[in-house]
Amino acid sequence: MDIHPKELLQQLFDSAVAAALPKGNLAEYLPKDTRQKAVVIGAGKAAASMAAELEAIWEGELTGLVVTRYEHGAHCERIEVIEAAHPVPDDAGERVGRRMLELVTGLGEDDVVICLLSGGGSSLLSLPAPGLALSDKQAINKALLRSGAAIDEMNCVRKHLSAIKGGRLAAATYPARLIALGISDVPGDEPTVIASGPTVADPTTSAQALSILEHYHIEVSPQVRTWLESPESETVKPGDERLSKSEFHMVATPQDAIDAGAAKARELNITPLVLGDGIEGEAREVAKVHAAIAKQILKCGQPIPAPCVIISGGETTVTIKGEGRGGRNSEFMLSLFNELKGQAGVYALAADTDGIDGIEDNAGAIIWPELYDEAKKRGLDAEKYLANNDSYNFFSQLNALVETGPTRTNVNDFRAILVLPK
Amino acid sequence: MDIHPKELLQQLFDSAVAAALPKGNLAEYLPKDTRQKAVVIGAGKAAASMAAELEAIWEGELTGLVVTRYEHGAHCERIEVIEAAHPVPDDAGERVGRRMLELVTGLGEDDVVICLLSGGGSSLLSLPAPGLALSDKQAINKALLRSGAAIDEMNCVRKHLSAIKGGRLAAATYPARLIALGISDVPGDEPTVIASGPTVADPTTSAQALSILEHYHIEVSPQVRTWLESPESETVKPGDERLSKSEFHMVATPQDAIDAGAAKARELNITPLVLGDGIEGEAREVAKVHAAIAKQILKCGQPIPAPCVIISGGETTVTIKGEGRGGRNSEFMLSLFNELKGQAGVYALAADTDGIDGIEDNAGAIIWPELYDEAKKRGLDAEKYLANNDSYNFFSQLNALVETGPTRTNVNDFRAILVLPK
Repeated sequence: MDIHPKELLQQLFDSAVAAALPKGNLAEYLPKDTRQKAVVIGAGKAAASMAAELEAIWEGELTGLVVTRYEHGAHCERIEVIEAAHPVPDDAGERVGRRMLELVTGLGEDDVVICLLSGGGSSLLSLPAPGLALSDKQAINKALLRSGAAIDEMNCVRKHLSAIKGGRLAAATYPARLIALGISDVPGDEPTVIASGPTVADPTTSAQALSILEHYHIEVSPQVRTWLESPESETVKPGDERLSKSEFHMVATPQDAIDAGAAKARELNITPLVLGDGIEGEAREVAKVHAAIAKQILKCGQPIPAPCVIISGGETTVTIKGEGRGGRNSEFMLSLFNELKGQAGVYALAADTDGIDGIEDNAGAIIWPELYDEAKKRGLDAEKYLANNDSYNFFSQLNALVETGPTRTNVNDFRAILVLPK
Repeated sequence: MDIHPKELLQQLFDSAVAAALPKGNLAEYLPKDTRQKAVVIGAGKAAASMAAELEAIWEGELTGLVVTRYEHGAHCERIEVIEAAHPVPDDAGERVGRRMLELVTGLGEDDVVICLLSGGGSSLLSLPAPGLALSDKQAINKALLRSGAAIDEMNCVRKHLSAIKGGRLAAATYPARLIALGISDVPGDEPTVIASGPTVADPTTSAQALSILEHYHIEVSPQVRTWLESPESETVKPGDERLSKSEFHMVATPQDAIDAGAAKARELNITPLVLGDGIEGEAREVAKVHAAIAKQILKCGQPIPAPCVIISGGETTVTIKGEGRGGRNSEFMLSLFNELKGQAGVYALAADTDGIDGIEDNAGAIIWPELYDEAKKRGLDAEKYLANNDSYNFFSQLNALVETGPTRTNVNDFRAILVLPK
C-alpha cells in the first residue's frame, strides 16, 4: 500500500463526512427557478451548513432563521443562524421556535418556505404547546428518559406536547408551499423521526401519549392532562389537507456516508465489508462482535479475505457505570482495543460524523497494532479504563483521539476496521 | 426453494453438529496398527461418543474409563462411562480423577494411553493436588467466578491446585505413549485450554497463581498457601522431558461445525456469510448486531445480497438480572426476535451444539416472521420476557424451542439467520 493504514482510515472517515454534508446535495430538490423570495427555517446540527449551501444556490431573497447546537454555527449572509443548547433544550430554543412559527403563519399560497432539518433538531426546537410551560415539557422529558420507555413512545409524548412537532409546523405554513430538506441520523431514515417530524403527518394520538405516561407512572400536571384530553392536542394526521402542499426530501443519510467510505476503500484497492448503517447496541459489546469478525478474516478469510475493511454505521449506546470521560465511539474503540490486543495487521477508527463524540471535544479514536505495547509500557490498563468508562483519557494519553471539530452535519457514527494480510 | 426455511435452518444445525461428532474424525490420529492394548481415559461432554467411536476403530484390548456430564453418557462395550456433575464438580468427578491417575501411573514405554478430551472436561475432572481438599478448590473456584478475574487467570489458578491439569496427567503417563484427542469448545482451539490442558505444557507459574489470588483479594487456607509456595505445585513446563511422548490432535472444532453449516447452505443454493467461530459478548447485544446485518441485507444487499444465511459460532454470555429461565441461545433469539419484529423473509435459529442451552432441556430456539404476530395475539411481550431473562418460557409457549437432547459433543453455539429476498 502506498498509503499508511492510519491515513487510509482517516480518508475513509473524511469521505463519509463529506458525503453527508449538504454541499451539492440540496439543489436537485429545489425549484429550478430560484429567483423568487423564500422564507427559511430549520433546526439541527447541520442547520448552519444547510443554510450556507442554500444561500449559495438561491438567487432570490432569503429571509428567516435556523437554530443549531452551540459551536456548530457558521456565518451566513442572509439567513440568521442561532445557537442553542443540545441535548437538553434551553429557552433560546423556545424563542427560536416561536419566531419560526410567526414567520410561516399567514403566508399565501404562492409563498415558498424552505425547512432545513437534521439530527438534534428535536431538542433544539422545543416550543411547548399553548398553555404549557417549558418546565412541564422538561420534567416529562427527564422522567421519560429515566423510565425505560422506547424511543417511539418518547417521541409520541413529545409530539403531543409541542407546538411545532408532529406536522404542526407544516399546518401553520399552509397554504404556502413547504419544501422540507432533511439529513437523517436515524436508522430507517423516517421523516417522522428527524427532528420529530415538524412537517410530516403523525399517526399517533393524544390518547396514546396519555396511556404511555400512565404506563410508566409519570406524573403530569393538571395543565398537561387537560391539554392532552383536548382535541387541540392532536398532531396532524395523514391525509390532512394542510399537508397537501408540504414535501419532504432526504438529502443525506447514514447509508450515503457508509457508501462513500466503501467507495473510497475500493479506490484504494481495499475491499469493503459493509455490515450496515444501523448497527446498534451497547458499544463495548458491539465492539466484541467487530473484533471477532476481524479475527475471523485473519484466521480463515471469512467472510472475505484480507485486505479488507469492515465498515459500519449507526448509534451505539453506553451504559455508564464508571466516572470517566468518553463518548460511545471512543468506548467502542477501547473495547475493540482490549479484544484485539495489538493483533498484527488490524487498524481501526470509530468517530461521530458530527465531529463530537458525546460531550467531548474529539470525534472518536483510532488504534493501530503498536499501540497495544505502547499502552502497556505506559502502564495504561485498558480493562480498568473500560470499567470506568474512561476511554477519552485512555486514548488522549496515547495521542489516539480523532479530532475534527464540529463538522456541521450528522449522520451518526462511522466505524472502519482495516484488516491487512499477514 | 423446495425446502421450508425452518427445515433448512434445522438442516444447517444438524450438519454443524454432525461435523463436530467424533464419528469418522478419530481414526486418522491413531496408530495404523490398533491390535495392541490401549488404556483409555477422558473427560468432557463428548467423552461417551468419543469412547464409542474409539471402540468401533480399535481392534486390540481397551481398558479404562471416561467421565461425562449427567445425561450425556452412552453405553460402551469395553470402556467404562461414568457420569458426574457439571459445571459445579461433585465427588464423582474426584473419584474418577484418582482412578485415571492410577491407571496411567507405572506404565512402560511400549504402552499406549489414549486420552479423550472435550468441553466441560475441566470441571468433570476435579482432582485436588496432594494435601488439598476438594472443598478448598471449590471455595476458591466460587470466589474466582465472583471476582471478575479473566478466564486465563482463573485457569492459571485452577491448574496449580490440580493433580491432573496443566500437563500433570501426561507427566504421570510418561514413559508410556500418550495420544490425546480433543474436541474444542474455545476460540483459538488452544490445547492448553481444552479441559485445562491435562496433557500439554503450561507456561504459567505458581507465583502467578498466588499473585492472582492476592490481586482479587481471595482468601486462601494455610494448606493452599503452603502448597502454592512449594516447588511441587509447579505445573509441567514447555520442554519437560515427560511431555516428549505426548501428542495432541484436535479432531473437531467450532470452525468445522460452522464450515459444515455453510457447506450445507451452499448445497441448498443459499450463500453463507460466515461472521466467525468465536463471536462473543452479551447475548442480547450480539443479537442486535446480527439483526442489523440482516436488515442491511434486505435494505441494500450489503454485505451480500439475499438469499443468504448469516452464520456465527462462539459462546455469548448472559448477565442475569431477572428471574426467568433460559440459556444464552434462547436469550440471543429473544433479543433478535425483538429487533426484527416479524421482518418478512427473515428466519433464524440459535442453539448449543451440545444440545443443552445452559441448564435447560432445549438446545436453543427458532423464529420465523409469523411468530411475531402469534406472540402479540397471545399477549406475550418480548421486551418483558427479555428483561426477566425468561426466553425459555417465551419460546416454549410459542412452540419455538429447538430440542435435540444431549448430542454428546460440544463445539459451542451455532447461529444461522436466513434472509430471503423480498
